[in-house]
Amino acid sequence: MSKIRHALNTRRADDFAQWYQEVISAADMAEESGVRGCMVIKPWGYGIWERIQRLLDARIKATGHDNCYFPIFIPLSNFEREAEHVEGFAKEMAVVTHHRLIADGEGGLVPDPEAKLEEPLVVRPTSETIIGDAMARWVQSWRDLPLKLNQWANVVRWEMRTRMFLRTSEFLWQEGHTAHENADDAKEHTLRMLEVYRAHAEDDLAMPVVAGEKPEHERFPGAVETWSIEAMMQDGKALQAGTSHYLGTNFAQAAGIRYQNREGAQELCHTTSWGVSTRLVGGVIMTHGDDDGLRVPPRIAPWQVVILPMLRDDDGDAALIEYCEGLRFALASQSALGEPVRVLLDDKPGKAAAKRWDWVRKGAPVIVEVGARDMEGGVVSLLRRDRLWGENGKPAFQSPARDEAARAIPAMLEEIQQALFAEARERREANVARGVETFDALKAFFASNGRYPGWVEVQWSKPTGAALDKVVADLKALKLTVRNVPIGAAGAEGACIFTGEPAVERVLIGKAY
Amino acid sequence: MSKIRHALNTRRADDFAQWYQEVISAADMAEESGVRGCMVIKPWGYGIWERIQRLLDARIKATGHDNCYFPIFIPLSNFEREAEHVEGFAKEMAVVTHHRLIADGEGGLVPDPEAKLEEPLVVRPTSETIIGDAMARWVQSWRDLPLKLNQWANVVRWEMRTRMFLRTSEFLWQEGHTAHENADDAKEHTLRMLEVYRAHAEDDLAMPVVAGEKPEHERFPGAVETWSIEAMMQDGKALQAGTSHYLGTNFAQAAGIRYQNREGAQELCHTTSWGVSTRLVGGVIMTHGDDDGLRVPPRIAPWQVVILPMLRDDDGDAALIEYCEGLRFALASQSALGEPVRVLLDDKPGKAAAKRWDWVRKGAPVIVEVGARDMEGGVVSLLRRDRLWGENGKPAFQSPARDEAARAIPAMLEEIQQALFAEARERREANVARGVETFDALKAFFASNGRYPGWVEVQWSKPTGAALDKVVADLKALKLTVRNVPIGAAGAEGACIFTGEPAVERVLIGKAY
Repeated sequence: MSKIRHALNTRRADDFAQWYQEVISAADMAEESGVRGCMVIKPWGYGIWERIQRLLDARIKATGHDNCYFPIFIPLSNFEREAEHVEGFAKEMAVVTHHRLIADGEGGLVPDPEAKLEEPLVVRPTSETIIGDAMARWVQSWRDLPLKLNQWANVVRWEMRTRMFLRTSEFLWQEGHTAHENADDAKEHTLRMLEVYRAHAEDDLAMPVVAGEKPEHERFPGAVETWSIEAMMQDGKALQAGTSHYLGTNFAQAAGIRYQNREGAQELCHTTSWGVSTRLVGGVIMTHGDDDGLRVPPRIAPWQVVILPMLRDDDGDAALIEYCEGLRFALASQSALGEPVRVLLDDKPGKAAAKRWDWVRKGAPVIVEVGARDMEGGVVSLLRRDRLWGENGKPAFQSPARDEAARAIPAMLEEIQQALFAEARERREANVARGVETFDALKAFFASNGRYPGWVEVQWSKPTGAALDKVVADLKALKLTVRNVPIGAAGAEGACIFTGEPAVERVLIGKAY
Repeated sequence: MSKIRHALNTRRADDFAQWYQEVISAADMAEESGVRGCMVIKPWGYGIWERIQRLLDARIKATGHDNCYFPIFIPLSNFEREAEHVEGFAKEMAVVTHHRLIADGEGGLVPDPEAKLEEPLVVRPTSETIIGDAMARWVQSWRDLPLKLNQWANVVRWEMRTRMFLRTSEFLWQEGHTAHENADDAKEHTLRMLEVYRAHAEDDLAMPVVAGEKPEHERFPGAVETWSIEAMMQDGKALQAGTSHYLGTNFAQAAGIRYQNREGAQELCHTTSWGVSTRLVGGVIMTHGDDDGLRVPPRIAPWQVVILPMLRDDDGDAALIEYCEGLRFALASQSALGEPVRVLLDDKPGKAAAKRWDWVRKGAPVIVEVGARDMEGGVVSLLRRDRLWGENGKPAFQSPARDEAARAIPAMLEEIQQALFAEARERREANVARGVETFDALKAFFASNGRYPGWVEVQWSKPTGAALDKVVADLKALKLTVRNVPIGAAGAEGACIFTGEPAVERVLIGKAY
């Protein structure tokens, strides 16, 4: 048995949901706000989101999109125009009905009946309808196309059961919206943005994903095609980490987005939309966290290296800090993963060991402790967060010379980024079963494969209508859902495991967040 | 008379308000959204805001603040705790009362009466009360202080009369919130952030400001002291461009933000808050715009240099674009104002002259046109947006060799940044009257000094109560307000121009947005 004394109280293997909450709290990332379904994102959690924003924003701009900003309020009538869309969101919309408060005569406040809005306003759950209005104004000719917009914003979907970062009534996201001349262009763009998400998830977040098309019954309300990236969390569940939708002419019809084509005729645009949210932070936690807290991939770590001088409140402290500053300056002038190294010298008061464990829980990729003895020897004590424990059950400190540490850390950060990705990908691959050929075998797989069973990739006949309803219901009874039809999966042959009819494609099935 | 054919229809001197709207439209910065009081910020307007965000965010982080994110919804009861605060905002609050829509039976939608919230939620007009709740949870001891937070967010204040960027029901801003051990620390921090705003306005936006304290009746609701930076627009009106508040213990009392002090006793924190908003973009327009559109200071220009190849849809275009690419690469590898030069090669279809005037209206600091003849001569045609017209009434093109342009443009950008600031400061200084010694003289100044009269700096006795009410009313009759008591203004001597009593300080008075 391991003698390791882990930095968290809960093991992933014991209670994953509890562990997840504990990481968020122990890493000081977020907390409940007291406002129903809304969280407070604290500096370390928000710092990770800021890194995600910066990296993804660069990818979105590099693919030719302009950022802009649309109103948070959407008139009710906008929603009424696209029936499926409103059907999908009406149950979870926050509605503004008044624009003033007055005293209630008992020391409290109430909405002023005199200030009731003529038309209630919805707090945006997503912005297709309001951005569609703008596109209808902005697009006249094929020369205005493609129109490629993006916004970073908060949205609200009134959720009954919330979980921090994964499902909150208010969340932060980016939503891209584009208009094109024809279906081919729009579909190509839908897949291009899916690829942007895949690259961001895998290269920036070190989170392996499966990109594929959602089955019909899992489409975005109003979409013709919905594509997703699905990531496997350490409990084997799927996290839908991003979606990209081809909307056909549905929203163009509703908003009147028409253009004069190259032959001079009026046509409807084909539009797309795609988004990722603060949910990604939850994905990072459940992909890379361990029993000691979070491990942040270096590319999205607010601080990649934290230097902790072991201060003793005596005359030696000044020299020790100067010694640490030497390392900080040497690192800050280096680059890793294409950017200057982000290094913090944390000389706040507090016991060195307590501070070390705080940074372990937060998941800083490299932690460097420096005591008086290190300084005398010209060395530092260095801990890689991704290889925390030595074989002796103690933290696996390395003791490079200070100058050697400054030279080695940039490459080490790149190595950690790769190692976290490789570890997650291997785990994912080990937990996708591809030999499941009957529905009974599927049931057996999920019944016998432990608490965290992973996914199966099976072949099906792509049923529709009542046949699809039955598949969905049968899976729901097992708490399973069809995640997507992976791009590049093996071809199908033989029978659908649900209908017995000839199979046409392979689908991923698993539990999901 | 000038023969110049300006790029806008409206002259500033003729109708400043109309001119302002025309710049926003002609520079493609924003437009009305169709949602009452809310605007759509278009790519060029949003790009300027993104630059403002990035530069100010760096200043806020450099002064030790962490970014985080708090809920957009605030329970009504939070507001009830600070009487002045709610008094100040209750009249303009958007209130969420329902969390679901249902069909109204006539093809429309209505808020579901079954989904009425027990306690209405306010869409944040500002976040003191909700961040105060968090501070109360996070602060235990003096060791937790100072606590320095900032968030970038949208806020809503239901405005009856709106004007794009200056006054909209929803706007984007940053709001900083800090907690301190005592009044001295908190007041010092209030002034530090005011100085951050001053530096940002003057150094980044090239917009000269007067920093000073707001008089009592202009304080933020619930504040003990409110400080502002005031900028003079080209119509002589003041724009309050940023505010910083010392809140005393008012909000700490309301939210229960207490800490154990160094002697072990419980004490209330002293808090501050401070914010700037998308209003700054309006300030940039009214500070730097001219009769040809916007002039964006290089530091906040999304593109600092725009290269326009004069394409002819023939075989020569490829060589011309390659020639332009040479300039683009040479510039992109240079720095100006401490960052890599942001240069766009705009080879979209369209007539060269029309594109030039679009970029003039948008205010790109340097526009470089390149035609076949330029290429043959190894030169480019360069236009400085801040010195658009030659003495002959034509655009003042320079014709440097291409390589010389690449070398000269970085310094030119720094020069333009300085020139715009110097021009605005000179105009401001020329329009502040300091010799006004009686209220009659003040009246005469505003009556006789043309349509855009500027400000007066007068001395007053800092009246309070009924005496202050009278001053405010007398000024209001002239559509004037007290802007602030400038830091570093000359001392007062002699009589107050309002009360005749001994003067104690000097105040700025003017019309304002």
